[in-house]
Amino acid sequence: VAVGIGDDCAVLRVGRGRDLLVTTDLSIERVHFRREWHPPDSVGHRCLTRGLSDMAAMGGEPVAAFVSLALPRQLPQRWVDEFFEGLLRLARKYKVQLAGGDIAQAEQIAADIVVVGSVPAGKAVLRSGARPGDAIFVTGRLGASAAVLKMLQEDRKIRARRFPEHFYPVAQIEVARRLRQSGRATAMIDISDGLSVDLAHICGESGVGARVEQAAIPRAKVDRVQVSLEMALHGGEDYQLLFTSRKRIPKTVAGVEVTRIGIVTSEPGVVLVDERGRENKLESRGWEHFANE
Amino acid sequence: VAVGIGDDCAVLRVGRGRDLLVTTDLSIERVHFRREWHPPDSVGHRCLTRGLSDMAAMGGEPVAAFVSLALPRQLPQRWVDEFFEGLLRLARKYKVQLAGGDIAQAEQIAADIVVVGSVPAGKAVLRSGARPGDAIFVTGRLGASAAVLKMLQEDRKIRARRFPEHFYPVAQIEVARRLRQSGRATAMIDISDGLSVDLAHICGESGVGARVEQAAIPRAKVDRVQVSLEMALHGGEDYQLLFTSRKRIPKTVAGVEVTRIGIVTSEPGVVLVDERGRENKLESRGWEHFANE
Repeated sequence: VAVGIGDDCAVLRVGRGRDLLVTTDLSIERVHFRREWHPPDSVGHRCLTRGLSDMAAMGGEPVAAFVSLALPRQLPQRWVDEFFEGLLRLARKYKVQLAGGDIAQAEQIAADIVVVGSVPAGKAVLRSGARPGDAIFVTGRLGASAAVLKMLQEDRKIRARRFPEHFYPVAQIEVARRLRQSGRATAMIDISDGLSVDLAHICGESGVGARVEQAAIPRAKVDRVQVSLEMALHGGEDYQLLFTSRKRIPKTVAGVEVTRIGIVTSEPGVVLVDERGRENKLESRGWEHFANE
Repeated sequence: VAVGIGDDCAVLRVGRGRDLLVTTDLSIERVHFRREWHPPDSVGHRCLTRGLSDMAAMGGEPVAAFVSLALPRQLPQRWVDEFFEGLLRLARKYKVQLAGGDIAQAEQIAADIVVVGSVPAGKAVLRSGARPGDAIFVTGRLGASAAVLKMLQEDRKIRARRFPEHFYPVAQIEVARRLRQSGRATAMIDISDGLSVDLAHICGESGVGARVEQAAIPRAKVDRVQVSLEMALHGGEDYQLLFTSRKRIPKTVAGVEVTRIGIVTSEPGVVLVDERGRENKLESRGWEHFANE
């Protein structure tokens, strides 16, 4: 970043032979977070993770972030300070510079995060590259974030620090970078809306279908209890990666567990195969908000 | 734009030897516009103009736009359609591609516009380059947008199409590009918050002061009546350019009137010199919203 906050635009220099990546994500109070549930530093962290995870989904390297904040007049300054603490702590970890943004008054908190990054020219891993016969993989374990959300919805008092899967989720930037470098991933997406929805996105963009083995889906544990299949299938905000490949994939990449969960098919639609071999259509549902890109 | 809407990030290719410019601007219902005053296509137009004008302020060329929209559940789809019509009509005019965004539910309309563009490497015109002795110039005429806003505040029924200065303002992309190419502008900003505020920004970033001739300030006419000095000094959203130069500047650039209004000084502060030669401190005020970058 050559020029940051304090001029009309941020000026960035992108290395020669690299493509630029841009992603924007809007987080709104009472839709994406609640002030009574989420500490302000968790809100800041989660906002940035959404953008970083989109970067990861392309195999990209984040460079700069911009945040536009709509804030109610009566919001304590402390809330804003802690929001930025959470956001900047995460930004430093990934050497992402906060390079600008905007701020305005509103009746409800809204934060729009823009992350700009880069990838070697022509090497971004798209959603559209899956082909019949490719194996389907996920990183990490699924459903933890939704399981913690359920605890919040049930009014259980929980400390944010004890449940980082929900309050301080991590984008899989390094795993994605290695998958892209090795040329192993044919298509990739981050699981922000839930496995069922995000797999349907890959299938839609690639013009293919998928067959998923129910027993293979890696379910997270929360408080030492394994989450339900429902949560693993439809729970969002885990920020793990879902990708397809026709090559061998190691069991761990950059220290993160990778699990084969199924195969890409030529027939459209996603089929879930249960433990007894019965096939069911996997509906896309769960975490999708009002609308989703 | 190599990949647009439909993947996790937009992929952009920036020409070799060019710097990337990024700007974000948040527009909020009842702060930046009102549904009872502004037709939806005007809101879309005005949102994009804010970003394009920031691009102009650096001498940059816009390439792509991203829009994140927070929308109340009960908002008619027609409002959204017309918002995009206004935004896309303007985008086409400047060959700017709408390359992504996000959408979410909220209680109040909020639109965050991100414009990405480029400029030859190292050639962005910053706010910080003004030096004592440079002359100060503005493009076009000032105060029209604020004068129309006042009419709206006075409950006067007006048709948006009759007052494009307010409802469909134009960013000075071409004038700015020529000024940058000719190397004539030492510092530049767009007048979005009002002359007094934006001149103070240039002075602050450049570590200089300014002396402005009151009689030289080009005041706009609205309904054939010249706007007040107050409006020309402090009214915002005209999206004209304010720049400094130590070279000769033609009276028109790219068909737009350019007026010399004063001179950069070494003493900090902005002094307004009236018709009788009396000097008064020019306070920065007017259009600044809740907070401003």
